[in-house]
Amino acid sequence: MNLNKLQEWLQANDTDVAYISNPISIAYFTGYSMDPHERIFALLAFKDAESFVFTPALNVEEAKNSDWDGDVYGYLDSEDPWEVISNTIRQRTKEFKNWAIEKDDLSVAHYQNLRSKFPDASFTNDVSAFIERIRLYKTPEEIEKLKGAGEEADFAFQIGFNAIKTGVTERSIAGQIDYQLKLQKGVMHESFETIVQAGANAANPHLGPTMNTIKPNDLVLFDLGTMHDGYASDASRTVAYGEPSAKQREIYEVDREAQQAAIEAAKPGITAEELDNVARDIIKKAGYGEYFIHRLGHGIGKNVHEFPSIVEGNDLVIEEGMCFSIEPGIYIPGFAGVRIEDCGVVTKDGFEPFTHTDKELRVIPIEE
Amino acid sequence: MNLNKLQEWLQANDTDVAYISNPISIAYFTGYSMDPHERIFALLAFKDAESFVFTPALNVEEAKNSDWDGDVYGYLDSEDPWEVISNTIRQRTKEFKNWAIEKDDLSVAHYQNLRSKFPDASFTNDVSAFIERIRLYKTPEEIEKLKGAGEEADFAFQIGFNAIKTGVTERSIAGQIDYQLKLQKGVMHESFETIVQAGANAANPHLGPTMNTIKPNDLVLFDLGTMHDGYASDASRTVAYGEPSAKQREIYEVDREAQQAAIEAAKPGITAEELDNVARDIIKKAGYGEYFIHRLGHGIGKNVHEFPSIVEGNDLVIEEGMCFSIEPGIYIPGFAGVRIEDCGVVTKDGFEPFTHTDKELRVIPIEE
Repeated sequence: MNLNKLQEWLQANDTDVAYISNPISIAYFTGYSMDPHERIFALLAFKDAESFVFTPALNVEEAKNSDWDGDVYGYLDSEDPWEVISNTIRQRTKEFKNWAIEKDDLSVAHYQNLRSKFPDASFTNDVSAFIERIRLYKTPEEIEKLKGAGEEADFAFQIGFNAIKTGVTERSIAGQIDYQLKLQKGVMHESFETIVQAGANAANPHLGPTMNTIKPNDLVLFDLGTMHDGYASDASRTVAYGEPSAKQREIYEVDREAQQAAIEAAKPGITAEELDNVARDIIKKAGYGEYFIHRLGHGIGKNVHEFPSIVEGNDLVIEEGMCFSIEPGIYIPGFAGVRIEDCGVVTKDGFEPFTHTDKELRVIPIEE
Repeated sequence: MNLNKLQEWLQANDTDVAYISNPISIAYFTGYSMDPHERIFALLAFKDAESFVFTPALNVEEAKNSDWDGDVYGYLDSEDPWEVISNTIRQRTKEFKNWAIEKDDLSVAHYQNLRSKFPDASFTNDVSAFIERIRLYKTPEEIEKLKGAGEEADFAFQIGFNAIKTGVTERSIAGQIDYQLKLQKGVMHESFETIVQAGANAANPHLGPTMNTIKPNDLVLFDLGTMHDGYASDASRTVAYGEPSAKQREIYEVDREAQQAAIEAAKPGITAEELDNVARDIIKKAGYGEYFIHRLGHGIGKNVHEFPSIVEGNDLVIEEGMCFSIEPGIYIPGFAGVRIEDCGVVTKDGFEPFTHTDKELRVIPIEE
């Protein structure tokens, strides 16, 4: 169990208490997932006592009915949550001298509030890096969930491709994708806002779907994903609406070649930087290096973006069980954007993608 | 302009630099809205120099094309963002001794990274409370946007009510709402995940829509909202599917009376706690006090939850221009939940709701 690993870490690092504040980390350790908005939500894990979950009062029932079978304590909106946490901890253990926090997540204000209740304690230990590290290696159960999310992304592409016709807005296509995901696949939420970008809009990575309409001879870029049992998918495809121009086809084929080469190179032993370079070199040699303005990929799991980062300067050695995206892109302002992206898992000797939608340039017949 | 207020605050508080990290605050001051995920995104405002926006390189183009007309600097994934920020600041000004940060937002890790680049500077000033305070009072332009968002919520309720019939899942109804919002109203995203809860599920506030199906004689609770030009709506209605039982009707009418009394009491001069008590007293007297397990309301604006908090213990005096929700609820585990919620603005002598969907108990005829 993941929580055991945390407790081993506490023991190995002579840390009495870990204050886990990131809702994703809490879900990873407890199986209970919740968005606390501005309220306080934490997992308190101890070296020598039973862990507990701390939530707003209105979530206590839900937490108790979740996969988490430890204690749950709540606080009312009219109470000081830090006071309640402090009292609960002091009832549970006498050991709270050395704390670890998630420095990547905990706000300065919460940190200072917590410290004020334990003025003699030390808060120098950071458990963020440890959590990132254990989350790097996915278990077979996690990989099954990631594959399930990938299947939903493949389904979503089909809905999107079928929705393309002249005059339809990007936003309407995105809406149809989300609706059919909910209706046909029971997808509760997307892992991020579904992106549909036509023509020059696609040169702006991550611009949301706008009221821009599909026009004949646009390249149309889709970037989408779902949450499946707490795990994310994230995939991109770019298609041509009507016969592409020579230039459109060229940037597509360069990007596809770069993506394919990186997928083939992804295996245990290569570093993140080397893998980024496999794709980047191909795009550079074709003369489009300046238009590939982001890293090759990012880890995926409970978060749509997590570690490892497949980027220049990262000498992390890729190992079996790591899951990440491979997504080179070419963005030419005022003209078009192409991105092809699959997430997958590093196997013993290769890389197994979670999405399987065909990557030959798909040409969608013009329909007025 | 909002940014002028921030610069006045810097001068009044003898602060050289404000590091604004909350994307909502950045949007409030600059008009440029973006979700940076795990990357670095900040507004740097100075006492004696021009402010600038700092973004990942892939967002620079978008930021320059936004409403923000100041400078934009970016960093590549392969660069150290703190080094780039530090160099940019040192080129811009010689004054960086006293800093203010948003302690409610900035993570401990980012704080420590920033401090390491300016080891002689002081970071004790917190600008969070000031930003909360100026955001408390909405301008006429902001109120127009909140009303626009409210109209979309009213539209969404109609879609939801029409979708109720036996055997349909909560999630399918939520999906239909989101799709029609996108299609008919061009709503890019909801302000939070659309909530549809039938029967006992509604006793669990904030439980997302599940695969639970609508059954005859359920109470069905909707809680939903949209983002409209950067401003949120948030509203709840509860309807009966088929003739309600005496008990169902009773809890509905108690909640409605409590909500109506609070709307009538909301005006300049009352405190947040007093207003909470207006509704709470009615629910207590009816014998349901223990089932009203959250505060009466929360502020609304660019965030779906912001200040003021309408809660016991908050002696804040309500003033004209403040915008918040009034949302008493009664949640009886295993039986049903009722919540009625409108957001609105405090006027010279009252409270003007942003949503207008009828609050008499709506009985939807059973359709098998």
